[in-house]
Amino acid sequence: MSRPADTVGRLLVRCPDRFGIVAAVSSFLSASGANILSLDQHTTATYDGTYFQRTEFALPSRDLDRLRAAFDSDVARHFAMEFSVTDTAVPKRVGILVSRIDHCLLDLLWRTQRGDLDATVEVVVSNHPDLAAAVESFGVPFVHVPVTPESKPEAEARQAELLAGLDLVVLARYMQIVSGSLLEAVGAPMINIHHSFLPAFVGAVPYRQAKERGVKLVGATAHYVTEELDQGPIIEQDVVRVNHRHTAADLTRLGADVERSVLSRAVRWHCEDRVMRDGTTTVVF
Amino acid sequence: MSRPADTVGRLLVRCPDRFGIVAAVSSFLSASGANILSLDQHTTATYDGTYFQRTEFALPSRDLDRLRAAFDSDVARHFAMEFSVTDTAVPKRVGILVSRIDHCLLDLLWRTQRGDLDATVEVVVSNHPDLAAAVESFGVPFVHVPVTPESKPEAEARQAELLAGLDLVVLARYMQIVSGSLLEAVGAPMINIHHSFLPAFVGAVPYRQAKERGVKLVGATAHYVTEELDQGPIIEQDVVRVNHRHTAADLTRLGADVERSVLSRAVRWHCEDRVMRDGTTTVVF
Amino acid sequence: MSRPADTVGRLLVRCPDRFGIVAAVSSFLSASGANILSLDQHTTATYDGTYFQRTEFALPSRDLDRLRAAFDSDVARHFAMEFSVTDTAVPKRVGILVSRIDHCLLDLLWRTQRGDLDATVEVVVSNHPDLAAAVESFGVPFVHVPVTPESKPEAEARQAELLAGLDLVVLARYMQIVSGSLLEAVGAPMINIHHSFLPAFVGAVPYRQAKERGVKLVGATAHYVTEELDQGPIIEQDVVRVNHRHTAADLTRLGADVERSVLSRAVRWHCEDRVMRDGTTTVVF
Amino acid sequence: MSRPADTVGRLLVRCPDRFGIVAAVSSFLSASGANILSLDQHTTATYDGTYFQRTEFALPSRDLDRLRAAFDSDVARHFAMEFSVTDTAVPKRVGILVSRIDHCLLDLLWRTQRGDLDATVEVVVSNHPDLAAAVESFGVPFVHVPVTPESKPEAEARQAELLAGLDLVVLARYMQIVSGSLLEAVGAPMINIHHSFLPAFVGAVPYRQAKERGVKLVGATAHYVTEELDQGPIIEQDVVRVNHRHTAADLTRLGADVERSVLSRAVRWHCEDRVMRDGTTTVVF
Repeated sequence: MSRPADTVGRLLVRCPDRFGIVAAVSSFLSASGANILSLDQHTTATYDGTYFQRTEFALPSRDLDRLRAAFDSDVARHFAMEFSVTDTAVPKRVGILVSRIDHCLLDLLWRTQRGDLDATVEVVVSNHPDLAAAVESFGVPFVHVPVTPESKPEAEARQAELLAGLDLVVLARYMQIVSGSLLEAVGAPMINIHHSFLPAFVGAVPYRQAKERGVKLVGATAHYVTEELDQGPIIEQDVVRVNHRHTAADLTRLGADVERSVLSRAVRWHCEDRVMRDGTTTVVF
Repeated sequence: MSRPADTVGRLLVRCPDRFGIVAAVSSFLSASGANILSLDQHTTATYDGTYFQRTEFALPSRDLDRLRAAFDSDVARHFAMEFSVTDTAVPKRVGILVSRIDHCLLDLLWRTQRGDLDATVEVVVSNHPDLAAAVESFGVPFVHVPVTPESKPEAEARQAELLAGLDLVVLARYMQIVSGSLLEAVGAPMINIHHSFLPAFVGAVPYRQAKERGVKLVGATAHYVTEELDQGPIIEQDVVRVNHRHTAADLTRLGADVERSVLSRAVRWHCEDRVMRDGTTTVVF
Repeated sequence: MSRPADTVGRLLVRCPDRFGIVAAVSSFLSASGANILSLDQHTTATYDGTYFQRTEFALPSRDLDRLRAAFDSDVARHFAMEFSVTDTAVPKRVGILVSRIDHCLLDLLWRTQRGDLDATVEVVVSNHPDLAAAVESFGVPFVHVPVTPESKPEAEARQAELLAGLDLVVLARYMQIVSGSLLEAVGAPMINIHHSFLPAFVGAVPYRQAKERGVKLVGATAHYVTEELDQGPIIEQDVVRVNHRHTAADLTRLGADVERSVLSRAVRWHCEDRVMRDGTTTVVF
Repeated sequence: MSRPADTVGRLLVRCPDRFGIVAAVSSFLSASGANILSLDQHTTATYDGTYFQRTEFALPSRDLDRLRAAFDSDVARHFAMEFSVTDTAVPKRVGILVSRIDHCLLDLLWRTQRGDLDATVEVVVSNHPDLAAAVESFGVPFVHVPVTPESKPEAEARQAELLAGLDLVVLARYMQIVSGSLLEAVGAPMINIHHSFLPAFVGAVPYRQAKERGVKLVGATAHYVTEELDQGPIIEQDVVRVNHRHTAADLTRLGADVERSVLSRAVRWHCEDRVMRDGTTTVVF
C-alpha cells in the first residue's frame, strides 16, 4: 500500500537475539506512519544467536533522516542494534577494479546501463590500459593505475583516492591481491568473483587442473573481500556441467559465463540491501 | 531462544492488506509471552493486495488453545483474518491414493519412515491390489478399493470414509479423476503430481509425444487438486535435461525421478505449513 | 592428429539406416588421407530408422571440393545419403531479424565480437529503427525495413533480398510472423527463440499469465522456424527458478536472461554443424 | 536394425591415437556380420593422444567369444589396443560395502529391484550389523564383517573373499579406508561417493564446516577408488542449492539426496560400460 508520493525505505538491523524485537521494530514503524512492504528476518541459533532483519517500508513523507534518528533513540539503543536506513530511490554508487579480462566488467556495465542493477558505475580503475575504450563507450570514466611491485604503495594510494566515498567496490576479475590497508582506506565493502571447482584447485592454471582431474562441474563464487584471500563471506555460487569433450579453453569460456552471472547476482543483491554479513558467512534475504 | 520445554507453534495468517498487521501480530505474540523464531510475510500487490504471514514461535507453556482463542478475539477479527495455529510437535496425518505405479508412493513411505517428512502415513488406498505387500512392509495399512465406471459412486464413498479426518491426501500417481464431491467429502487438501513439458502435451502418452517433439527438458509439477483437472495452484516444479539419445522409456524413467523428488518436496513443505493458497497460485514460505 | 597445415572439415550425413554405413564412411575417409578427429552418430529406431552422422576430420590438403565430389560418387549414392562437407575455418554468415527488444541481439553481437561463436553477423534487419546505433557500434550494418499490414509483401521482398545467400537467419525476439514465402525466399535455416512455461501459456502477455498461475519455473525454447508457428524442431531449452516474490517484471527480466543464453547456445551449435533436423525433432551432437 | 534373436554386444577400445582406427574397427564389425547400433569415440589430444571408442552392435549369432578372438588377432594387436567385448544381456554382478548410513545403499537396492540398473547385487558387506534386515528384505545376502584396527588384516581378507569375482564393488557410504591390498585382492573396479563443496572442506564434520562458511551449494562426487584417498577419477558430480536458513542437519539431508542420485548415475553408467578410465580422469560416453 505504497503510493507514488511515498518514500520507500529499507531498514537493516543486526543485534543479539532477544525477546520482542519484531514487535518493537514493527510497532515503531507503525507509530511513525510507515507501512511495512516486506519483512525478512533470521536468527542464527536457538540460544544466544544473532538476529537479522530487513524491512522495506513506505513513508508518506520524505523524512528518512528523522525516522533514522528516532529509530536510533527509541529502538536501536535498547536492543544494542547495528542498523541502517536507506532510500530505495537512491542507486548505490559503485566502483570497479579490473585487469584485462572483460567479461565480468562488460556484464556489469551492460546491466547497469539497462537499469537491471540498482546502481551507477562511477569509475573503472585498471592496472592495464586495454579496456579504456570499451568502458568509455558506456560513458563511464576509466582510469589506468599501473601497479608494479615497487609502485604498489603509490598505486594503492591512487586507487583509494579514486574509490573513496563509494558504496561498493567490485573486483571484476582483478588479478591483483588487495591489501588490508587498501581495503581499510576505501572503506566500502568489496565483492570479488573467482572460479571454483569440486574439488578445489589452487594455483595459476585452475581450468587446466580441472581438466586434468576430469571434473564434471565448473563453478564460480562471489564473496566479500577480507584480508584473508578468497576466504571472505560467500554471497552466491553456481556451477555449469562439463564433460570429457570440453577442452581447457571450453572450460574457461563456460567458466566465464558462470562467473559473470554469479557476480551480477551478487552485486544486484548487495545493491538491493539483501546481503548482511554474519562473521564468516552471509544472510541473503 | 526456545527451550526444550517450550511448545513451538506456527501461526498462519491471511487477510486483506492493511496498515499495521505485522506490528499487531508481533505485539500480540510478545504480550502472550511467545518468542518469534521465524517470520515470513508477503503482500500480493501494492494496493488492495492480500497479506500472508507465517510465524514460528516458542511458547513457555503448552496452551496453544488459549493462544488461539485470544488471537481470534484480539487480532484476527479486527483485521478480518483467516488464520491457523498448529503445534510443530504434531506430525500431519496423511493418506495416499495410488494406482499401480509405485515410485512416488515408495519415496513418500521411505522418507516418512526415515523421519524426513513431518508426517505419518495413516492409510494407502488403491484401485489396484498390486502394491499391498510393498505398503504393508512399511507397517502402513493398505486398502484396495476397486473403481469401475459403474461402481464409482460407491468407491468414492468408501474412499471418503477411509480418508476422513486426515490433514492431507496425496495422489501419488493416482491415475483416476477425483470428483468434486470426493474432494468435498474428504475435506483435507489434496496434492497431485503430474509430468510437465515445454511445450505442454496432453493425452494418454505424453512421454512419447515429448520424444516425437524432441524436447530437451522433461519435468514434473506438484499442485493442489481442484475440480478443474491439473489446473490447481502449483506448489513446486522441476525439470531434468534429456537429449536425442534418450528413448521414450528413458524419458519415463527420468520423469519418474523428477516426479518423486518434486512430490516429496511439495509434501514436505505442506507438512511444515509453508504453503498458503492464493486463488490460482501459492505462496511458498 | 591434425597439423597446423591441415584443413579441418566436417561431414554431415543423413540416410536410411543400413548395415555398414560407419565402415563405408570411415574407410572412405581413411582412403582419402583424412584423419577422423571426432565421430558422432545416431539411429532413430531399431528397425527402419534414420541414420545421422557428424564427423570432423583433418585433411593434409586444402581440397575439400575434391573430397566432396568423391564422397558423392563413391559413398553417398550407394546409401541414398543427404550430406554436406564444410570447412571449419570458414565461419557461418549470419543475418539477424529483430524488433525493439535488444537482449538477445546484443548477446549475439557481443559473443560474435569476442570470437565465442563461429560466425560473422552480416546484417541486422529490424522493423523498428530503435537499435540502429547499438548495432552499428559493433561495426555491423543495420537496415530498417518497416512492416505494416499493407506493406508486408514489399517488406518481405526487401528482407529476402537483404538476407539472401546467408548460412543462417536468427530471429532474436522478432515479434512478427515469418511467412512461408519469406522462409522459402531466404533459403537458409532460421532459428527463433521464445519463452516457455510449464504449463504452456499462449497469448500476448505470457509472463503475466505465468505470474497469475504461480509457476515456479520460467524457461525458453530455441527452435527452427517452420510454417507452423512456434512448432518447429527444438534445438535447446532451459529454465530458471522463480517464486511468489518475483513480480511479472522480475519474470520478464529472468526470462530475458534465459532466452539469451538458450538462443546463443542454439546458434553456437548450429554454427558448429552440431544440429541435424529429423522431421519434427533435432539431433544435437 | 537389431532383431530379437540378435546378441547385442559392446566393444570398448583404448589405444594410442593413430590414423584409421574407426575404419579398421567398423570394417571388422561389418565383415563379421555385426551391425553397429551406436558408436562413441574420443581422442584426448591433437597429437599423441589416447583414443577411446565404445561401440554397441547387433550380431545375428550368439558367438561373442569368436568375435572377441578374431578382433584380438585381426585388429587389436595391430593398434596396440586394450579392449573388451561384453554381452548387454548379462547384467553386471555388483557387491556393496556399507557402514551404518543407508540412503545410498537403499537407493541402489531399490533401483536394482526395479530393473533401473543393469546389475544384480550379489552381496552387501558391512562393518556394522545394523542394516541386515533392510538388505535381506530385498532378498540380497548381508554379511557382517567387523573391522577393528587389530582385526583389519583378517577383515580385509574376509571382504576380499566375499567380493571376489564380481564385476564392480560400490562403496555406498563405507566410512573406512580401503587399503591398496584389498583393492588389488578384489580385482574389480570400486566406485566411491563423497560429499563435495565449493570450496572444499576436509575433516570429520564437513557439513558443519560448510554451514560455518556459508556455502550456497552442497554437492557430491562419485569416483573410482585408487590408493590415494578421494583422488580417483571422477565419474559424476552434482550440487543442490542451499541458503542461510538451512541448518547443518538440512545440509546433511539435502547432501544425502544428491549423494544417492550421483552414486546411482555413476553405477548405472559403469554397468552400461559407458565409463572408461584415462589416467586421473574418465571418459563418460
